[in-house]
Amino acid sequence: MTECIHDDRPRSSAATPSGRMLIAGTPTVGDGPTMYSRNPSTGTNLEPGYPAASAGLVESACRHASQAAVPYRNVAPSERATFLDRIADELEQRREKLVTRARSETALGVQRLQGEAGRTVGQLRLFAAELRAGYWTQVRIDPAQPDRAPQPRPDLRQRRIGVGPVAVFGASNFPLAFSTAGGDTASALAAGCPVVVKAHPAHLGTAEIAAEAIAVAARDTGMPPGVFSQIVGEGNETGALLVRDPRIRAVGFTGSRRGGLALLALAQQRPIPIPVYAEMSSVNPVILLPAALAARGSALGEQFAASLTLGAGQFCTNPGLILAIDGPGLSHFIDSAATAVSDDPGATMLTTAIAKAYQTGSGRTGGLAEVEVLARGSRPDTAAGAAAQLLRTDAGAFLGNPLLHKEVFGAASTIVVCDDLVELVDVLAAIEGQLTATVHADADDQAAARALMPILEDLAGRIIFNGWPTGVEVGHAMVHGGPYPATTDSRSTSVGTAAIERFLRPVAYQDVPSALLPTELSAPESADVPWRLDGHMQLLAHSREDR
Amino acid sequence: MTECIHDDRPRSSAATPSGRMLIAGTPTVGDGPTMYSRNPSTGTNLEPGYPAASAGLVESACRHASQAAVPYRNVAPSERATFLDRIADELEQRREKLVTRARSETALGVQRLQGEAGRTVGQLRLFAAELRAGYWTQVRIDPAQPDRAPQPRPDLRQRRIGVGPVAVFGASNFPLAFSTAGGDTASALAAGCPVVVKAHPAHLGTAEIAAEAIAVAARDTGMPPGVFSQIVGEGNETGALLVRDPRIRAVGFTGSRRGGLALLALAQQRPIPIPVYAEMSSVNPVILLPAALAARGSALGEQFAASLTLGAGQFCTNPGLILAIDGPGLSHFIDSAATAVSDDPGATMLTTAIAKAYQTGSGRTGGLAEVEVLARGSRPDTAAGAAAQLLRTDAGAFLGNPLLHKEVFGAASTIVVCDDLVELVDVLAAIEGQLTATVHADADDQAAARALMPILEDLAGRIIFNGWPTGVEVGHAMVHGGPYPATTDSRSTSVGTAAIERFLRPVAYQDVPSALLPTELSAPESADVPWRLDGHMQLLAHSREDR
Repeated sequence: MTECIHDDRPRSSAATPSGRMLIAGTPTVGDGPTMYSRNPSTGTNLEPGYPAASAGLVESACRHASQAAVPYRNVAPSERATFLDRIADELEQRREKLVTRARSETALGVQRLQGEAGRTVGQLRLFAAELRAGYWTQVRIDPAQPDRAPQPRPDLRQRRIGVGPVAVFGASNFPLAFSTAGGDTASALAAGCPVVVKAHPAHLGTAEIAAEAIAVAARDTGMPPGVFSQIVGEGNETGALLVRDPRIRAVGFTGSRRGGLALLALAQQRPIPIPVYAEMSSVNPVILLPAALAARGSALGEQFAASLTLGAGQFCTNPGLILAIDGPGLSHFIDSAATAVSDDPGATMLTTAIAKAYQTGSGRTGGLAEVEVLARGSRPDTAAGAAAQLLRTDAGAFLGNPLLHKEVFGAASTIVVCDDLVELVDVLAAIEGQLTATVHADADDQAAARALMPILEDLAGRIIFNGWPTGVEVGHAMVHGGPYPATTDSRSTSVGTAAIERFLRPVAYQDVPSALLPTELSAPESADVPWRLDGHMQLLAHSREDR
Repeated sequence: MTECIHDDRPRSSAATPSGRMLIAGTPTVGDGPTMYSRNPSTGTNLEPGYPAASAGLVESACRHASQAAVPYRNVAPSERATFLDRIADELEQRREKLVTRARSETALGVQRLQGEAGRTVGQLRLFAAELRAGYWTQVRIDPAQPDRAPQPRPDLRQRRIGVGPVAVFGASNFPLAFSTAGGDTASALAAGCPVVVKAHPAHLGTAEIAAEAIAVAARDTGMPPGVFSQIVGEGNETGALLVRDPRIRAVGFTGSRRGGLALLALAQQRPIPIPVYAEMSSVNPVILLPAALAARGSALGEQFAASLTLGAGQFCTNPGLILAIDGPGLSHFIDSAATAVSDDPGATMLTTAIAKAYQTGSGRTGGLAEVEVLARGSRPDTAAGAAAQLLRTDAGAFLGNPLLHKEVFGAASTIVVCDDLVELVDVLAAIEGQLTATVHADADDQAAARALMPILEDLAGRIIFNGWPTGVEVGHAMVHGGPYPATTDSRSTSVGTAAIERFLRPVAYQDVPSALLPTELSAPESADVPWRLDGHMQLLAHSREDR
């Protein structure tokens, strides 16, 4: 076994990427086989190599996280907010380096990556603000009633605390916003939970730069070193070690259905099962109602093709299924969408493996007897190049072939033509839980749209009207989640401030002496948190001014 | 197969118990083998007999629940509150009948059952008030910013909606407060979810009377009939049918660890897994710190024995484990507790099966070489009679034998004597997740108590100082839950208003036309719900007056 090299402190940003993981603030060379990210355009390895983590290093990261759990949970929320803001600052300082490295590792465009960097930074600052606003801790106080008959009422105070160390899996398709310093990490750190990230093997350099930003922020704001670690590992075994580690208390994951379900099974088989928040699979149906189609079929077709091919179709919310009611305007929609897809130059996907899976998946559906290939775009001559594909079928064929219901990750979509609303509702009843459901409707479609609403509420986490599912706002009202198999837990969102709730659990304190209570429970007014007194909301001073 | 007899409407209360289930508002005779509750004092069957549900009747209850799901979800929260209040009224009207029947089915005392009836009624009214207060729906509105650059921000609105039909399993030990019209049912109905109850076989008559109250309330307040059903069935098969039914979307359960884990496994193996909220197993450690013991060891011993033997020890929060630091006062504690347990007349347990399991479990631990039997109480000469038992062991023996960590349901407790705080912390580190953890501490114990707090926060859902774990307040701040295996989901509580969150999931509405939005999202001010505008809480008129 190679001996690990431990530095005293995170290296200056000039030194990254250096091929190291990060264990509790210390850049650490792994002791397993060396891994390389690849340039998906050229297919060649990118330096430096990253020796992977052995079981011992995974164990070390988890041990440090566990040791940090209580100290970090007890860091005042305002100081945790400062930590998150500082991570955002450190990322900003490394922004060009992050974008440059991510570009070579993912083939995503500079503009897209700049946008994603902004989103990642904004997300951290939003969680910092949410921490300061204080609603997340949900303080509830039911004061004692010593004179109540027949028995006195005790003093009861409730707050939410972090569940403990969280394992976060970097996502292939968002090297910044859903990876090392992405939404899962930001919400877990906000909740007061240490984080151990398993870096996505496709963008190890980007991951290292982001981890360095977190480590510097943790050091400079005085957080316990174990609050953040990042490990590197090939295949599924490293992730399994992480999820099986008894010190890990929850899992955040964005990726394939197979990957998410494997982690869920591991988590459920533990002696002490833990929650898994896996965002897995969605075809994001878009419903085109007759009046909207008739009024603007052609424009809708163009918009659809733009949403479909955005970022090589590599979004969880990519519109993979169009449900259209046959009638005037449909042919315009199909013509304009098909033209746009035919004209699409194609794109380089995130990895050659993803491109190959896309090739196989889109080829399989495109080769079915019951579908018509409306258009195929061009395929760029790169290692991970892929061409967009647009298919057409009818409701009966769709209902008869489960293959057509499955997500093909990438810019492939199928238009399912339905005779009428009844048939469209049958199709909706047959498809699986989704992240999003979109409706294009004009005034004359309103009765149909009204009938669809309860169906869509049961089907998806987000309902969109007259827009497209790609583009996920990071705010307070966003739900990026949905019924299984869109996610493993429909009660949650992985984007927006409500994502913090995934990593919290309530604790009640009965007649606990004031001196032993956290300030938000002993003196919520002075801690400046909103609280419910016998159920009635008591706003804090700064919130009252907001109104 | 026997033909089912359907009445037109719920029978008048004079006719119950009649031996019937309730399917979507219709009293229904089962078509399976006839079951009887038994009087646990005499061991004899109680009339009437209850023919059990076949798979077809379970399926019928689930189908009706599914049909009611959207209509019931769309019933205005204020009307759902009226429904809950009306259930409370109908239960009040049947209070004497409920208590009388429950007494013969459970052998619980009249005073206890009267208290439980009051709690059940109060719990429904509390959820009605919580529905009206509106925090549960967690409305968040991030308005559109059409001029935002580089891209306009859409209008996003979030609310929480019911997950769909909920299966509730009646608990043996709370025939009223955790059964047909108990906390799980109240919180699921409040959340907008139809409920299918599996009546506990030990108190079928009580269950029928309570179901009738719900059916009358549903009919008189105009709820969809499928909003509530109750089925009867022997063994595990009926429950398994219910949890496997694809229309059931969540499960509420209070009972044994074996039962809870069996339901959890079934729920996870479904094609679409669903959440299970099972409250299963807890020994509720009580820690006696030196100064408290020295100051009032004898009084603590008496209080402990009273908490231990209350209701034949048949509480989820029964103090089954005492962790005491050796020193002055411990002998006084042990003497007074042992005397009180020796003097205890014993009690009739809920069923002969439970008494037999208690006999086996308490006998097994009482017979261990490493324990000393401090006291055994008397055993009443009834079919399900049981005697209290108090054991003593030391930390080393406890740590060496997992059998001593397991719950024995009933009035059995073990005092584990620890040399010092370090040893006590070792014991705490070895025990499983708990519903409660209690500390008896005086001023001089404060340093020790402070050191214990983070450990107890990780161990239990509720921390109690200078009291006893039995007695679970129904309020806003209560947490009746805790880390596995106390429950299957430490992020939840099954008592108190936060219990409603178990049955809700968030949905976001992006640019959805006002006319298609529920009022709380299109016009939260006029719907009189609190809401967050870009994250800032906007209180409703009636809440502002409260402050």
